[in-house]
Amino acid sequence: MRWSLLEIAGRAEIAVWIGDNAFQLRELDGNLSVSDVLSRSSRLREQLDHMPTQCAPIDQRQMRYLPPLLGQKILCAGLNYRDHIAETGSVAPQYPNLFIRFPDSLVGHEEALEIPDVSVEFDYEVELAVVLGRPLSGRISREQALAAVSGYTIFNDGSLRDLQFRSSQWTLGKNVARSGAMGPWVVSADDLPVGGAGLRLQTRIGEETLQDGNTGDLLFDVADLLVATAAALPLRPGDVLATGTPAGVGFSRQPPRFLQAGEICELQIEGIGTLRNPIRHAR
Amino acid sequence: MRWSLLEIAGRAEIAVWIGDNAFQLRELDGNLSVSDVLSRSSRLREQLDHMPTQCAPIDQRQMRYLPPLLGQKILCAGLNYRDHIAETGSVAPQYPNLFIRFPDSLVGHEEALEIPDVSVEFDYEVELAVVLGRPLSGRISREQALAAVSGYTIFNDGSLRDLQFRSSQWTLGKNVARSGAMGPWVVSADDLPVGGAGLRLQTRIGEETLQDGNTGDLLFDVADLLVATAAALPLRPGDVLATGTPAGVGFSRQPPRFLQAGEICELQIEGIGTLRNPIRHAR
Repeated sequence: MRWSLLEIAGRAEIAVWIGDNAFQLRELDGNLSVSDVLSRSSRLREQLDHMPTQCAPIDQRQMRYLPPLLGQKILCAGLNYRDHIAETGSVAPQYPNLFIRFPDSLVGHEEALEIPDVSVEFDYEVELAVVLGRPLSGRISREQALAAVSGYTIFNDGSLRDLQFRSSQWTLGKNVARSGAMGPWVVSADDLPVGGAGLRLQTRIGEETLQDGNTGDLLFDVADLLVATAAALPLRPGDVLATGTPAGVGFSRQPPRFLQAGEICELQIEGIGTLRNPIRHAR
Repeated sequence: MRWSLLEIAGRAEIAVWIGDNAFQLRELDGNLSVSDVLSRSSRLREQLDHMPTQCAPIDQRQMRYLPPLLGQKILCAGLNYRDHIAETGSVAPQYPNLFIRFPDSLVGHEEALEIPDVSVEFDYEVELAVVLGRPLSGRISREQALAAVSGYTIFNDGSLRDLQFRSSQWTLGKNVARSGAMGPWVVSADDLPVGGAGLRLQTRIGEETLQDGNTGDLLFDVADLLVATAAALPLRPGDVLATGTPAGVGFSRQPPRFLQAGEICELQIEGIGTLRNPIRHAR
Protein backbone atom coordinates (compact mmCIF):
# COMPACT_ATOMS: atom_id res chain seq x y z
CA MET A 1 0.00 0.00 0.00
CA ARG A 2 1.08 3.57 -0.68
CA TRP A 3 -0.46 6.72 0.81
CA SER A 4 0.15 10.43 0.31
CA LEU A 5 -0.88 13.60 2.07
CA LEU A 6 -2.33 15.94 -0.55
CA GLU A 7 -3.73 19.44 -0.60
CA ILE A 8 -7.04 19.45 -2.47
CA ALA A 9 -9.24 22.54 -2.53
CA GLY A 10 -7.23 24.03 0.32
CA ARG A 11 -7.60 20.99 2.62
CA ALA A 12 -5.06 18.37 3.64
CA GLU A 13 -6.37 14.97 2.55
CA ILE A 14 -4.99 11.47 2.97
CA ALA A 15 -4.97 9.59 -0.32
CA VAL A 16 -4.20 5.95 -1.09
CA TRP A 17 -2.75 4.87 -4.41
CA ILE A 18 -3.76 2.04 -6.71
CA GLY A 19 -1.34 2.08 -9.58
CA ASP A 20 -1.27 5.60 -10.97
CA ASN A 21 -4.58 6.62 -9.40
CA ALA A 22 -4.99 8.26 -6.00
CA PHE A 23 -8.24 7.98 -4.01
CA GLN A 24 -9.37 10.07 -1.07
CA LEU A 25 -9.48 8.06 2.12
CA ARG A 26 -12.55 9.84 3.50
CA GLU A 27 -14.52 9.23 0.31
CA LEU A 28 -13.72 5.56 0.58
CA ASP A 29 -15.12 5.27 4.10
CA GLY A 30 -15.79 8.25 6.35
CA ASN A 31 -14.93 6.19 9.40
CA LEU A 32 -11.38 5.45 8.32
CA SER A 33 -8.86 7.41 10.38
CA VAL A 34 -5.19 8.31 10.38
CA SER A 35 -4.75 5.35 12.69
CA ASP A 36 -6.24 2.97 10.11
CA VAL A 37 -3.75 4.23 7.55
CA LEU A 38 -0.70 4.02 9.82
CA SER A 39 -1.64 0.60 11.15
CA ARG A 40 -2.95 -0.69 7.77
CA SER A 41 -6.06 -1.90 9.59
CA SER A 42 -8.07 -4.82 8.27
CA ARG A 43 -10.96 -2.40 7.70
CA LEU A 44 -8.76 -0.32 5.40
CA ARG A 45 -7.40 -3.33 3.53
CA GLU A 46 -10.93 -4.59 2.94
CA GLN A 47 -12.01 -1.20 1.59
CA LEU A 48 -9.00 -0.98 -0.69
CA ASP A 49 -10.06 -4.15 -2.46
CA HIS A 50 -13.31 -2.45 -3.47
CA MET A 51 -12.14 1.11 -4.08
CA PRO A 52 -11.67 1.34 -7.80
CA THR A 53 -15.31 0.55 -8.52
CA GLN A 54 -16.73 2.69 -5.69
CA CYS A 55 -14.77 5.94 -6.02
CA ALA A 56 -13.53 8.32 -8.65
CA PRO A 57 -9.79 8.87 -8.61
CA ILE A 58 -8.43 12.30 -7.60
CA ASP A 59 -7.91 14.75 -10.46
CA GLN A 60 -4.14 15.08 -10.29
CA ARG A 61 -4.24 18.54 -11.90
CA GLN A 62 -6.16 19.75 -8.81
CA MET A 63 -3.83 18.52 -6.10
CA ARG A 64 -0.49 19.41 -4.50
CA TYR A 65 1.74 17.09 -2.51
CA LEU A 66 2.29 17.86 1.17
CA PRO A 67 5.05 16.14 3.16
CA PRO A 68 3.43 12.95 4.57
CA LEU A 69 3.50 14.12 8.19
CA LEU A 70 0.79 12.66 10.44
CA GLY A 71 2.74 12.81 13.72
CA GLN A 72 4.55 15.43 15.81
CA LYS A 73 8.22 14.41 15.84
CA ILE A 74 10.81 14.39 13.07
CA LEU A 75 14.19 12.98 14.07
CA CYS A 76 17.14 12.65 11.71
CA ALA A 77 20.33 10.63 12.03
CA GLY A 78 23.59 12.38 11.17
CA LEU A 79 26.84 10.66 10.08
CA ASN A 80 25.25 7.25 9.54
CA TYR A 81 26.99 5.92 6.38
CA ARG A 82 30.73 5.15 6.55
CA ASP A 83 31.47 6.70 3.13
CA HIS A 84 29.73 9.94 4.18
CA ILE A 85 31.55 9.97 7.54
CA ALA A 86 34.81 9.61 5.62
CA GLU A 87 34.05 12.34 3.07
CA THR A 88 33.22 14.84 5.87
CA GLY A 89 36.40 14.00 7.79
CA SER A 90 34.32 13.00 10.82
CA VAL A 91 34.79 10.22 13.35
CA ALA A 92 32.16 7.45 13.28
CA PRO A 93 29.73 8.01 16.16
CA GLN A 94 29.61 5.33 18.86
CA TYR A 95 25.87 5.89 19.29
CA PRO A 96 23.16 7.19 16.94
CA ASN A 97 23.67 10.94 16.44
CA LEU A 98 20.23 12.49 16.14
CA PHE A 99 18.88 15.96 15.51
CA ILE A 100 15.40 17.40 15.08
CA ARG A 101 13.68 19.11 12.17
CA PHE A 102 10.53 21.22 12.51
CA PRO A 103 7.65 20.30 10.16
CA ASP A 104 7.70 23.71 8.44
CA SER A 105 11.26 23.07 7.22
CA LEU A 106 9.80 20.49 4.80
CA VAL A 107 7.81 20.68 1.58
CA GLY A 108 6.10 17.97 -0.47
CA HIS A 109 6.97 16.37 -3.81
CA GLU A 110 7.15 18.83 -6.76
CA GLU A 111 7.07 21.86 -4.42
CA ALA A 112 9.90 24.37 -4.58
CA LEU A 113 12.84 24.14 -2.19
CA GLU A 114 14.10 27.60 -1.29
CA ILE A 115 17.59 29.07 -0.96
CA PRO A 116 17.33 31.61 1.88
CA ASP A 117 19.12 34.94 1.61
CA VAL A 118 21.19 34.10 4.72
CA SER A 119 23.04 31.20 3.08
CA VAL A 120 25.07 30.44 -0.03
CA GLU A 121 25.57 26.76 0.77
CA PHE A 122 22.31 24.90 0.14
CA ASP A 123 23.00 21.16 0.03
CA TYR A 124 20.96 18.02 -0.74
CA GLU A 125 20.91 14.77 1.27
CA VAL A 126 18.97 11.71 0.09
CA GLU A 127 17.70 9.59 2.98
CA LEU A 128 15.40 6.67 3.67
CA ALA A 129 12.84 7.81 6.27
CA VAL A 130 10.78 5.58 8.54
CA VAL A 131 7.16 6.40 9.45
CA LEU A 132 5.94 4.83 12.68
CA GLY A 133 2.63 3.00 12.92
CA ARG A 134 2.64 2.21 16.63
CA PRO A 135 3.98 3.90 19.76
CA LEU A 136 7.48 2.96 20.87
CA SER A 137 9.09 3.85 24.18
CA GLY A 138 11.40 2.43 26.78
CA ARG A 139 13.54 -0.67 26.43
CA ILE A 140 12.43 -2.48 23.30
CA SER A 141 13.85 -5.25 21.16
CA ARG A 142 14.92 -4.91 17.52
CA GLU A 143 11.88 -7.01 16.60
CA GLN A 144 9.51 -4.70 18.49
CA ALA A 145 11.11 -1.71 16.76
CA LEU A 146 10.63 -3.15 13.28
CA ALA A 147 7.08 -4.29 14.05
CA ALA A 148 6.18 -0.66 14.86
CA VAL A 149 7.25 0.65 11.44
CA SER A 150 4.28 1.56 9.25
CA GLY A 151 6.24 2.36 6.11
CA TYR A 152 9.08 4.15 4.38
CA THR A 153 9.44 7.31 2.33
CA ILE A 154 12.10 9.50 0.69
CA PHE A 155 13.56 12.39 2.67
CA ASN A 156 15.69 15.27 1.41
CA ASP A 157 17.48 16.47 4.56
CA GLY A 158 18.35 19.75 2.84
CA SER A 159 21.01 21.63 4.78
CA LEU A 160 22.42 25.16 4.79
CA ARG A 161 26.02 24.24 5.49
CA ASP A 162 27.29 27.69 6.45
CA LEU A 163 24.51 28.02 9.05
CA GLN A 164 24.84 24.36 10.15
CA PHE A 165 28.51 24.62 11.03
CA ARG A 166 28.47 28.02 12.74
CA SER A 167 27.84 26.23 16.05
CA SER A 168 28.27 22.73 17.47
CA GLN A 169 24.54 21.99 17.26
CA TRP A 170 23.27 21.82 13.67
CA THR A 171 19.76 23.13 14.41
CA LEU A 172 19.63 26.37 12.41
CA GLY A 173 21.19 24.94 9.24
CA LYS A 174 18.74 22.02 9.34
CA ASN A 175 15.56 24.03 9.94
CA VAL A 176 15.33 26.78 7.36
CA ALA A 177 11.78 27.05 5.99
CA ARG A 178 11.26 24.97 2.81
CA SER A 179 14.83 23.65 2.91
CA GLY A 180 13.91 19.95 2.99
CA ALA A 181 11.39 17.67 1.34
CA MET A 182 9.56 14.42 1.99
CA GLY A 183 7.46 12.13 -0.15
CA PRO A 184 5.88 11.63 -2.59
CA TRP A 185 4.26 8.81 -0.59
CA VAL A 186 4.76 6.32 2.18
CA VAL A 187 5.17 2.71 1.04
CA SER A 188 4.00 0.11 3.56
CA ALA A 189 6.73 -1.80 5.33
CA ASP A 190 5.31 -5.11 4.09
CA ASP A 191 5.98 -4.04 0.49
CA LEU A 192 9.71 -3.53 1.15
CA PRO A 193 12.58 -5.62 2.58
CA VAL A 194 12.67 -5.93 6.38
CA GLY A 195 14.05 -2.72 7.90
CA GLY A 196 14.14 -1.05 4.47
CA ALA A 197 17.53 -2.74 4.00
CA GLY A 198 19.37 -3.21 0.72
CA LEU A 199 17.70 -0.37 -1.20
CA ARG A 200 19.70 1.72 -3.66
CA LEU A 201 19.31 5.47 -3.05
CA GLN A 202 20.46 8.25 -5.39
CA THR A 203 20.49 12.00 -5.87
CA ARG A 204 20.44 13.37 -9.42
CA ILE A 205 20.42 16.87 -10.85
CA GLY A 206 19.81 16.75 -14.58
CA GLU A 207 22.35 14.30 -15.99
CA GLU A 208 24.60 14.39 -12.90
CA THR A 209 24.33 11.52 -10.40
CA LEU A 210 25.61 13.07 -7.16
CA GLN A 211 24.83 10.38 -4.59
CA ASP A 212 24.55 6.63 -5.21
CA GLY A 213 24.41 4.50 -2.08
CA ASN A 214 22.59 1.57 -0.54
CA THR A 215 20.63 1.40 2.72
CA GLY A 216 22.46 -1.85 3.45
CA ASP A 217 25.47 0.31 4.32
CA LEU A 218 23.82 2.15 7.23
CA LEU A 219 26.14 2.31 10.27
CA PHE A 220 23.13 2.12 12.62
CA ASP A 221 20.26 0.39 10.82
CA VAL A 222 16.55 1.17 11.19
CA ALA A 223 16.15 -1.16 14.18
CA ASP A 224 19.26 0.26 15.91
CA LEU A 225 18.03 3.83 15.45
CA LEU A 226 14.53 3.09 16.76
CA VAL A 227 15.82 1.13 19.76
CA ALA A 228 18.19 3.96 20.76
CA THR A 229 15.59 6.67 20.22
CA ALA A 230 12.76 4.91 22.04
CA ALA A 231 15.06 4.28 25.02
CA ALA A 232 15.32 8.06 25.45
CA LEU A 233 12.00 9.50 24.31
CA PRO A 234 8.49 8.36 23.37
CA LEU A 235 7.68 7.90 19.67
CA ARG A 236 4.09 7.84 18.49
CA PRO A 237 2.24 6.83 15.31
CA GLY A 238 3.10 9.16 12.45
CA ASP A 239 6.45 10.21 13.88
CA VAL A 240 9.30 10.18 11.37
CA LEU A 241 12.91 9.10 11.62
CA ALA A 242 15.25 9.88 8.71
CA THR A 243 18.20 7.51 8.65
CA GLY A 244 21.09 9.60 7.29
CA THR A 245 22.69 10.18 3.92
CA PRO A 246 25.42 8.33 1.95
CA ALA A 247 28.51 9.95 0.33
CA GLY A 248 28.34 12.54 -2.41
CA VAL A 249 26.88 15.60 -0.65
CA GLY A 250 27.74 18.97 -2.18
CA PHE A 251 29.93 20.47 0.56
CA SER A 252 32.30 17.48 0.52
CA ARG A 253 32.85 17.56 -3.25
CA GLN A 254 35.95 19.11 -4.86
CA PRO A 255 35.04 21.76 -5.77
CA PRO A 256 31.93 22.06 -3.55
CA ARG A 257 28.67 21.82 -5.49
CA PHE A 258 25.65 23.56 -3.98
CA LEU A 259 22.06 23.74 -5.21
CA GLN A 260 21.31 26.63 -7.57
CA ALA A 261 18.04 28.33 -8.44
CA GLY A 262 16.53 26.78 -11.55
CA GLU A 263 17.89 23.28 -10.91
CA ILE A 264 15.66 20.30 -10.19
CA CYS A 265 16.79 17.96 -7.43
CA GLU A 266 15.70 14.34 -7.86
CA LEU A 267 16.02 11.76 -5.10
CA GLN A 268 15.29 8.15 -5.92
CA ILE A 269 15.01 5.13 -3.63
CA GLU A 270 14.55 1.66 -5.03
CA GLY A 271 11.07 0.28 -4.33
CA ILE A 272 9.71 3.67 -3.24
CA GLY A 273 9.99 6.13 -6.14
CA THR A 274 11.34 9.58 -6.91
CA LEU A 275 11.07 12.79 -4.86
CA ARG A 276 11.53 15.76 -7.19
CA ASN A 277 11.83 19.42 -6.19
CA PRO A 278 12.74 22.53 -8.16
CA ILE A 279 15.11 24.99 -6.49
CA ARG A 280 14.38 28.72 -6.27
CA HIS A 281 15.39 31.70 -4.20
CA ALA A 282 13.17 32.53 -1.22
CA ARG A 283 11.06 35.57 -2.00
CA MET B 1 0.18 40.57 33.61
CA ARG B 2 0.84 36.92 34.40
CA TRP B 3 -0.81 33.93 32.75
CA SER B 4 -0.60 30.18 33.27
CA LEU B 5 -1.73 27.11 31.41
CA LEU B 6 -3.65 24.93 33.87
CA GLU B 7 -5.36 21.58 33.76
CA ILE B 8 -8.84 21.88 35.27
CA ALA B 9 -11.32 19.00 35.11
CA GLY B 10 -9.16 17.31 32.48
CA ARG B 11 -9.01 20.34 30.17
CA ALA B 12 -6.14 22.72 29.41
CA GLU B 13 -7.25 26.24 30.37
CA ILE B 14 -5.51 29.59 30.11
CA ALA B 15 -5.67 31.50 33.38
CA VAL B 16 -4.64 35.05 34.24
CA TRP B 17 -3.44 36.00 37.70
CA ILE B 18 -4.41 38.92 39.89
CA GLY B 19 -2.31 38.68 43.00
CA ASP B 20 -2.73 35.17 44.40
CA ASN B 21 -5.93 34.46 42.47
CA ALA B 22 -6.13 32.84 39.03
CA PHE B 23 -9.13 33.41 36.75
CA GLN B 24 -10.13 31.42 33.67
CA LEU B 25 -9.73 33.41 30.51
CA ARG B 26 -12.79 31.91 28.83
CA GLU B 27 -15.02 32.71 31.82
CA LEU B 28 -13.88 36.31 31.63
CA ASP B 29 -14.86 36.66 27.98
CA GLY B 30 -15.57 33.74 25.69
CA ASN B 31 -14.23 35.69 22.73
CA LEU B 32 -10.74 36.14 24.17
CA SER B 33 -8.22 33.94 22.37
CA VAL B 34 -4.66 32.72 22.73
CA SER B 35 -3.73 35.59 20.49
CA ASP B 36 -5.25 38.15 22.91
CA VAL B 37 -3.15 36.68 25.71
CA LEU B 38 0.12 36.60 23.76
CA SER B 39 -0.36 40.08 22.35
CA ARG B 40 -1.87 41.51 25.59
CA SER B 41 -4.66 42.96 23.47
CA SER B 42 -6.52 46.07 24.59
CA ARG B 43 -9.66 43.94 24.87
CA LEU B 44 -7.92 41.67 27.35
CA ARG B 45 -6.48 44.55 29.38
CA GLU B 46 -9.91 46.13 29.62
CA GLN B 47 -11.44 42.86 30.81
CA LEU B 48 -8.71 42.38 33.38
CA ASP B 49 -9.66 45.64 35.06
CA HIS B 50 -13.13 44.23 35.73
CA MET B 51 -12.36 40.60 36.40
CA PRO B 52 -12.28 40.35 40.18
CA THR B 53 -15.90 41.46 40.53
CA GLN B 54 -17.22 39.45 37.57
CA CYS B 55 -15.62 36.05 38.07
CA ALA B 56 -14.87 33.58 40.82
CA PRO B 57 -11.20 32.68 41.14
CA ILE B 58 -10.08 29.15 40.28
CA ASP B 59 -10.10 26.68 43.15
CA GLN B 60 -6.38 25.99 43.37
CA ARG B 61 -6.96 22.56 44.93
CA GLN B 62 -8.67 21.52 41.67
CA MET B 63 -5.94 22.52 39.21
CA ARG B 64 -2.55 21.33 37.97
CA TYR B 65 0.08 23.43 36.23
CA LEU B 66 0.93 22.59 32.62
CA PRO B 67 4.01 24.05 30.91
CA PRO B 68 2.83 27.37 29.36
CA LEU B 69 3.16 26.18 25.76
CA LEU B 70 0.86 27.86 23.26
CA GLY B 71 3.13 27.52 20.18
CA GLN B 72 4.87 24.72 18.30
CA LYS B 73 8.59 25.40 18.64
CA ILE B 74 10.89 25.19 21.65
CA LEU B 75 14.47 26.27 21.00
CA CYS B 76 17.18 26.35 23.66
CA ALA B 77 20.56 28.05 23.68
CA GLY B 78 23.53 26.02 24.87
CA LEU B 79 26.80 27.43 26.28
CA ASN B 80 25.49 30.98 26.67
CA TYR B 81 27.01 32.17 30.00
CA ARG B 82 30.80 32.59 30.20
CA ASP B 83 31.05 30.99 33.66
CA HIS B 84 29.12 27.92 32.43
CA ILE B 85 31.26 27.70 29.28
CA ALA B 86 34.35 27.76 31.53
CA GLU B 87 33.07 25.12 33.97
CA THR B 88 32.31 22.71 31.10
CA GLY B 89 35.74 23.24 29.52
CA SER B 90 34.08 24.40 26.30
CA VAL B 91 35.05 27.10 23.84
CA ALA B 92 32.70 30.10 23.64
CA PRO B 93 30.54 29.77 20.53
CA GLN B 94 30.94 32.43 17.86
CA TYR B 95 27.23 32.22 17.04
CA PRO B 96 24.18 31.19 19.08
CA ASN B 97 24.28 27.43 19.63
CA LEU B 98 20.71 26.20 19.56
CA PHE B 99 18.98 22.88 20.04
CA ILE B 100 15.35 21.77 20.10
CA ARG B 101 13.19 20.22 22.82
CA PHE B 102 9.92 18.42 22.14
CA PRO B 103 6.91 19.62 24.19
CA ASP B 104 6.46 16.23 25.91
CA SER B 105 9.92 16.55 27.47
CA LEU B 106 8.49 19.26 29.75
CA VAL B 107 6.17 19.28 32.76
CA GLY B 108 4.52 22.15 34.63
CA HIS B 109 5.18 23.67 38.05
CA GLU B 110 4.83 21.23 40.99
CA GLU B 111 4.71 18.21 38.64
CA ALA B 112 7.27 15.44 39.07
CA LEU B 113 10.43 15.39 36.99
CA GLU B 114 11.44 11.82 36.22
CA ILE B 115 14.81 10.03 36.23
CA PRO B 116 14.59 7.50 33.37
CA ASP B 117 16.02 4.04 33.81
CA VAL B 118 18.47 4.66 30.91
CA SER B 119 20.41 7.38 32.76
CA VAL B 120 22.17 7.94 36.07
CA GLU B 121 23.09 11.58 35.35
CA PHE B 122 19.97 13.74 35.63
CA ASP B 123 21.01 17.39 35.82
CA TYR B 124 19.19 20.71 36.40
CA GLU B 125 19.64 23.95 34.41
CA VAL B 126 17.89 27.18 35.40
CA GLU B 127 17.12 29.39 32.40
CA LEU B 128 15.19 32.50 31.48
CA ALA B 129 12.81 31.60 28.64
CA VAL B 130 11.21 34.00 26.18
CA VAL B 131 7.63 33.52 24.91
CA LEU B 132 6.90 35.18 21.58
CA GLY B 133 3.81 37.29 21.03
CA ARG B 134 4.28 38.07 17.33
CA PRO B 135 5.76 36.23 14.34
CA LEU B 136 9.45 36.84 13.62
CA SER B 137 11.30 35.80 10.49
CA GLY B 138 13.98 36.99 8.13
CA ARG B 139 16.35 39.87 8.72
CA ILE B 140 15.11 41.81 11.74
CA SER B 141 16.55 44.43 14.03
CA ARG B 142 17.18 44.02 17.76
CA GLU B 143 14.28 46.40 18.36
CA GLN B 144 11.92 44.31 16.23
CA ALA B 145 13.05 41.19 18.09
CA LEU B 146 12.35 42.68 21.51
CA ALA B 147 9.02 44.13 20.38
CA ALA B 148 7.88 40.60 19.45
CA VAL B 149 8.47 39.22 22.98
CA SER B 150 5.23 38.58 24.84
CA GLY B 151 6.77 37.62 28.15
CA TYR B 152 9.23 35.59 30.17
CA THR B 153 9.08 32.42 32.23
CA ILE B 154 11.35 30.02 34.12
CA PHE B 155 12.74 26.98 32.28
CA ASN B 156 14.44 23.93 33.73
CA ASP B 157 16.43 22.56 30.80
CA GLY B 158 16.81 19.21 32.58
CA SER B 159 19.46 17.09 30.90
CA LEU B 160 20.52 13.44 31.00
CA ARG B 161 24.25 14.02 30.69
CA ASP B 162 25.28 10.46 29.85
CA LEU B 163 22.78 10.39 26.96
CA GLN B 164 23.54 13.99 25.93
CA PHE B 165 27.25 13.39 25.43
CA ARG B 166 27.05 9.98 23.70
CA SER B 167 26.95 11.81 20.34
CA SER B 168 27.84 15.26 19.00
CA GLN B 169 24.20 16.33 18.83
CA TRP B 170 22.58 16.64 22.28
CA THR B 171 19.06 15.65 21.17
CA LEU B 172 18.43 12.46 23.15
CA GLY B 173 19.78 13.76 26.46
CA LYS B 174 17.64 16.89 26.14
CA ASN B 175 14.37 15.18 25.20
CA VAL B 176 13.62 12.47 27.73
CA ALA B 177 9.94 12.55 28.72
CA ARG B 178 9.30 14.67 31.86
CA SER B 179 12.97 15.67 32.12
CA GLY B 180 12.42 19.42 31.97
CA ALA B 181 9.97 21.95 33.37
CA MET B 182 8.52 25.35 32.53
CA GLY B 183 6.42 27.84 34.46
CA PRO B 184 4.65 28.48 36.75
CA TRP B 185 3.52 31.42 34.63
CA VAL B 186 4.53 33.85 31.91
CA VAL B 187 5.16 37.41 33.10
CA SER B 188 4.50 40.09 30.47
CA ALA B 189 7.57 41.74 29.00
CA ASP B 190 6.33 45.16 30.12
CA ASP B 191 6.52 44.05 33.76
CA LEU B 192 10.24 43.21 33.48
CA PRO B 193 13.43 45.00 32.37
CA VAL B 194 13.92 45.29 28.60
CA GLY B 195 15.14 41.96 27.20
CA GLY B 196 14.74 40.31 30.62
CA ALA B 197 18.20 41.67 31.43
CA GLY B 198 19.74 41.98 34.89
CA LEU B 199 17.61 39.33 36.61
CA ARG B 200 19.15 37.08 39.25
CA LEU B 201 18.48 33.37 38.59
CA GLN B 202 19.13 30.52 41.01
CA THR B 203 18.76 26.78 41.49
CA ARG B 204 18.22 25.43 45.00
CA ILE B 205 17.73 21.95 46.41
CA GLY B 206 16.76 22.12 50.07
CA GLU B 207 19.38 24.33 51.75
CA GLU B 208 21.90 24.04 48.88
CA THR B 209 22.14 26.90 46.38
CA LEU B 210 23.61 25.25 43.28
CA GLN B 211 23.34 28.00 40.66
CA ASP B 212 23.34 31.74 41.26
CA GLY B 213 23.72 33.87 38.14
CA ASN B 214 22.35 36.94 36.44
CA THR B 215 20.76 37.28 33.00
CA GLY B 216 22.94 40.35 32.49
CA ASP B 217 25.82 37.91 31.92
CA LEU B 218 24.32 36.21 28.84
CA LEU B 219 26.90 35.82 26.06
CA PHE B 220 24.17 36.25 23.41
CA ASP B 221 21.33 38.27 24.92
CA VAL B 222 17.61 37.84 24.17
CA ALA B 223 17.72 40.18 21.16
CA ASP B 224 20.85 38.47 19.75
CA LEU B 225 19.25 35.03 20.07
CA LEU B 226 15.99 36.09 18.42
CA VAL B 227 17.76 37.91 15.57
CA ALA B 228 19.94 34.87 14.81
CA THR B 229 17.06 32.41 15.07
CA ALA B 230 14.60 34.42 12.96
CA ALA B 231 17.24 34.82 10.24
CA ALA B 232 17.20 31.03 9.82
CA LEU B 233 13.66 29.90 10.63
CA PRO B 234 10.20 31.37 11.21
CA LEU B 235 9.06 31.92 14.80
CA ARG B 236 5.39 32.31 15.61
CA PRO B 237 3.32 33.51 18.57
CA GLY B 238 3.66 31.12 21.51
CA ASP B 239 7.04 29.76 20.42
CA VAL B 240 9.61 29.54 23.21
CA LEU B 241 13.32 30.28 23.32
CA ALA B 242 15.25 29.30 26.46
CA THR B 243 18.37 31.39 26.84
CA GLY B 244 20.92 29.04 28.47
CA THR B 245 22.11 28.34 31.99
CA PRO B 246 24.78 29.92 34.22
CA ALA B 247 27.51 28.04 36.13
CA GLY B 248 26.83 25.48 38.82
CA VAL B 249 25.28 22.57 36.92
CA GLY B 250 25.65 19.15 38.51
CA PHE B 251 27.96 17.45 36.01
CA SER B 252 30.60 20.19 36.30
CA ARG B 253 30.76 20.08 40.11
CA GLN B 254 33.51 18.24 42.01
CA PRO B 255 32.25 15.69 42.83
CA PRO B 256 29.38 15.68 40.30
CA ARG B 257 25.98 16.23 41.90
CA PHE B 258 22.98 14.78 40.08
CA LEU B 259 19.30 14.93 40.94
CA GLN B 260 18.05 12.14 43.19
CA ALA B 261 14.56 10.76 43.71
CA GLY B 262 12.90 12.44 46.69
CA GLU B 263 14.63 15.81 46.19
CA ILE B 264 12.78 18.99 45.25
CA CYS B 265 14.38 21.20 42.64
CA GLU B 266 13.61 24.92 42.97
CA LEU B 267 14.43 27.43 40.26
CA GLN B 268 13.97 31.10 41.03
CA ILE B 269 14.19 34.12 38.73
CA GLU B 270 13.91 37.63 40.10
CA GLY B 271 10.66 39.31 39.05
CA ILE B 272 9.13 36.05 37.80
CA GLY B 273 8.87 33.60 40.70
CA THR B 274 9.81 30.03 41.59
CA LEU B 275 9.46 26.86 39.51
CA ARG B 276 9.41 23.87 41.88
CA ASN B 277 9.48 20.20 40.88
CA PRO B 278 9.88 17.04 42.93
CA ILE B 279 12.17 14.35 41.50
CA ARG B 280 11.12 10.71 41.18
CA HIS B 281 12.06 7.62 39.20
CA ALA B 282 10.08 7.01 36.03
CA ARG B 283 7.63 4.19 36.58
